[in-house]
Amino acid sequence: YCSERNLAVNPQGGNTGLVGGSVPVFDEIILSTVFMNQIISFDKVSGILVCQAGCILEKLNEYLEEQGFIMPLDLGAKGSCHIGGNVATNAGGLRLLRYGSLRGTVLGLEVVLADGSTLDCLTSLRKDNTGYDLKQLFIGSEGTLGVITAVSILCPQKPKAVNLAFLGCQSFAKVLETFTTCRAMLGEILSAYEFMDEKCMELVEKHLKLASPVTGSPFYVLIETSGSNSTHDEEKLNNFLEQAMTSGLVTDGTVAMDDNKIKTLWSLRERITEALTHDGYVYKYDISLPVGKLYDLVTDVRVRLGRSAKNVVGYGHLGDGNLHLNITAESYSHSLLDAIEPFVYEWTARYKGSISAEHGLGFKKKQFIQYSKPPEAVFLMQGFKAMLDPKGILNPYKMLPSGS
Amino acid sequence: YCSERNLAVNPQGGNTGLVGGSVPVFDEIILSTVFMNQIISFDKVSGILVCQAGCILEKLNEYLEEQGFIMPLDLGAKGSCHIGGNVATNAGGLRLLRYGSLRGTVLGLEVVLADGSTLDCLTSLRKDNTGYDLKQLFIGSEGTLGVITAVSILCPQKPKAVNLAFLGCQSFAKVLETFTTCRAMLGEILSAYEFMDEKCMELVEKHLKLASPVTGSPFYVLIETSGSNSTHDEEKLNNFLEQAMTSGLVTDGTVAMDDNKIKTLWSLRERITEALTHDGYVYKYDISLPVGKLYDLVTDVRVRLGRSAKNVVGYGHLGDGNLHLNITAESYSHSLLDAIEPFVYEWTARYKGSISAEHGLGFKKKQFIQYSKPPEAVFLMQGFKAMLDPKGILNPYKMLPSGS
Repeated sequence: YCSERNLAVNPQGGNTGLVGGSVPVFDEIILSTVFMNQIISFDKVSGILVCQAGCILEKLNEYLEEQGFIMPLDLGAKGSCHIGGNVATNAGGLRLLRYGSLRGTVLGLEVVLADGSTLDCLTSLRKDNTGYDLKQLFIGSEGTLGVITAVSILCPQKPKAVNLAFLGCQSFAKVLETFTTCRAMLGEILSAYEFMDEKCMELVEKHLKLASPVTGSPFYVLIETSGSNSTHDEEKLNNFLEQAMTSGLVTDGTVAMDDNKIKTLWSLRERITEALTHDGYVYKYDISLPVGKLYDLVTDVRVRLGRSAKNVVGYGHLGDGNLHLNITAESYSHSLLDAIEPFVYEWTARYKGSISAEHGLGFKKKQFIQYSKPPEAVFLMQGFKAMLDPKGILNPYKMLPSGS
Repeated sequence: YCSERNLAVNPQGGNTGLVGGSVPVFDEIILSTVFMNQIISFDKVSGILVCQAGCILEKLNEYLEEQGFIMPLDLGAKGSCHIGGNVATNAGGLRLLRYGSLRGTVLGLEVVLADGSTLDCLTSLRKDNTGYDLKQLFIGSEGTLGVITAVSILCPQKPKAVNLAFLGCQSFAKVLETFTTCRAMLGEILSAYEFMDEKCMELVEKHLKLASPVTGSPFYVLIETSGSNSTHDEEKLNNFLEQAMTSGLVTDGTVAMDDNKIKTLWSLRERITEALTHDGYVYKYDISLPVGKLYDLVTDVRVRLGRSAKNVVGYGHLGDGNLHLNITAESYSHSLLDAIEPFVYEWTARYKGSISAEHGLGFKKKQFIQYSKPPEAVFLMQGFKAMLDPKGILNPYKMLPSGS
């Protein structure tokens, strides 16, 4: 209908994106997946779930937990985001370190193309080398090449034991060394390695009255293990902690093995975003960098902005090389923005980083793609867009830069 | 040079493919990656390796083992296959169950396009959501869209402990139940679950004089664990074995914890292919199916062929839903081939399987793509080919069906 009449379409799932990809810009028709919320099948032998695009991530996870499985991804927005939107934006989140990206776990897709025809690649096979893997083009394409209507995804076993350690480190170099040590000693049970600087903890305490059980360090790390045997996991974790303490990698710390304490410790990390909103206007950046360079960007931005910023903080998924850089000020100021951009993007480009690790480009960041992709790549992308959506009706004004 | 002169090019790595993808058909120029064998960088913190396309898989693995890491893939052809070819064919192999497919572990590629220009997507980032993920189109494209010249890949830690169990099961239903039980009890340390039928073992014993330590069962499974703590791993394995024995899932078995016995047991599985070649002419099929249906195909083919086949055997990567179906006869016969094909492809298509799980289509299987992909998908693939290689000079006559 829309194709025949040249009507632009804005596919929308849970509308939880952070870059405006799921929001219409002018007169696009919103195509919601909200009623496409049926689970089609789940195979307990293979762990493969097939469902419609509008299923809410948390509901899928609850369904799977009853069968002894979990979704391979977990996000703050899980209570409202749709799996179709997760796939369309190639969502990252908290479990990526352990279970890998959606590019490995999504096995099949059903996609409606711009001309209204349906592309059925909804297979449930772990291995299939017959022709180009078309579904990959739709994963992370933010609704600009087709509308994802159903997903087949490989789900891991639900872990029987989860433990958490919250530790203080005296330098970012020690944060990195702690990571390599714990990865070697915790091995297959390591499921998250998050870091945050002391500014984050100050803001969480100041604005949310959350007291950290560990204080007095410039950096903190949160290490999660997930495994199939609690005795084994605790022993591995204790061996690592002893090693980290005696070698001076870590100066202080606490461990949680019960659900309540685990939730309390996770909230110190998960509620940083909320604490920042209480601190003033927030300039937000979601950057991938070679892990060794990750914190240098925060330091450089802090020096550059000096007193013109209220706070410059860094935290994120260190295990994935993903930094959340946030800058607060009393209020929005154009001159402060000019001091931050394009400086942050140029800095990121210099070290071959990504200016959008997991949030995508959407409407807000589409003009900055050239900082992470060479002109030949952008040119090819425009070719795919023209081929798959010749009328330009699918989520227009998003992801790709406006023509000059 | 070739693009200007309309000269067709056949990219070639170690030339170990099984479907003729790396072999010229008419007068193509062979473009070998053999001298592009340099490691560019390895980062011990992130585990990310960047290297040229012509590096031999086994050499890369040896290099990584010295640093406490391994390659995320392992193949029988590792001694001569090139990493560029592995990526171009989306190679599967023995470690896929544990470390996932190359679509998740390959982080970046450098590709030379049909017009001779270089597409630089050689990033070393675990997360990058800036535009379409172009590298995915080249993974598994068998050299038809571009020539991969360099690869960035995420490598796992080298496991500190490896154990193997070789078990007998009384039915394929018990093979499946044993899989779900061991996945639940071994959890994160399970690294391979292979199965083979008694015919396989008969041929290995008859032609190679390899004696299986476990006999008298219609099915055998080989279970490998890889972990970071040998005591923990042995305890998990012993718990599982006790459960499997007492509940009657498994009737007999043996366990190997030292390198020599591990190698001997693996050879019972790895040398099936070799034993088959001694049995006569071999018709080979590499099929993906929903795991519950995996062995029904072998049974149906056996019934269908009756005495016209010498042996019909089934084995493979059960954990990945990948069956290697092999049929032997005293010599090649066209009538036997007609009895097998398209029967096997139609059977596979009926259960939404893949007619090439890991081998690709190359020259030999390109006409059968429609059994695993709908016409709309093949049409789109042809569109990508026309867009990226308008002159058709890149590995012509491969992967996509000849035009009608």
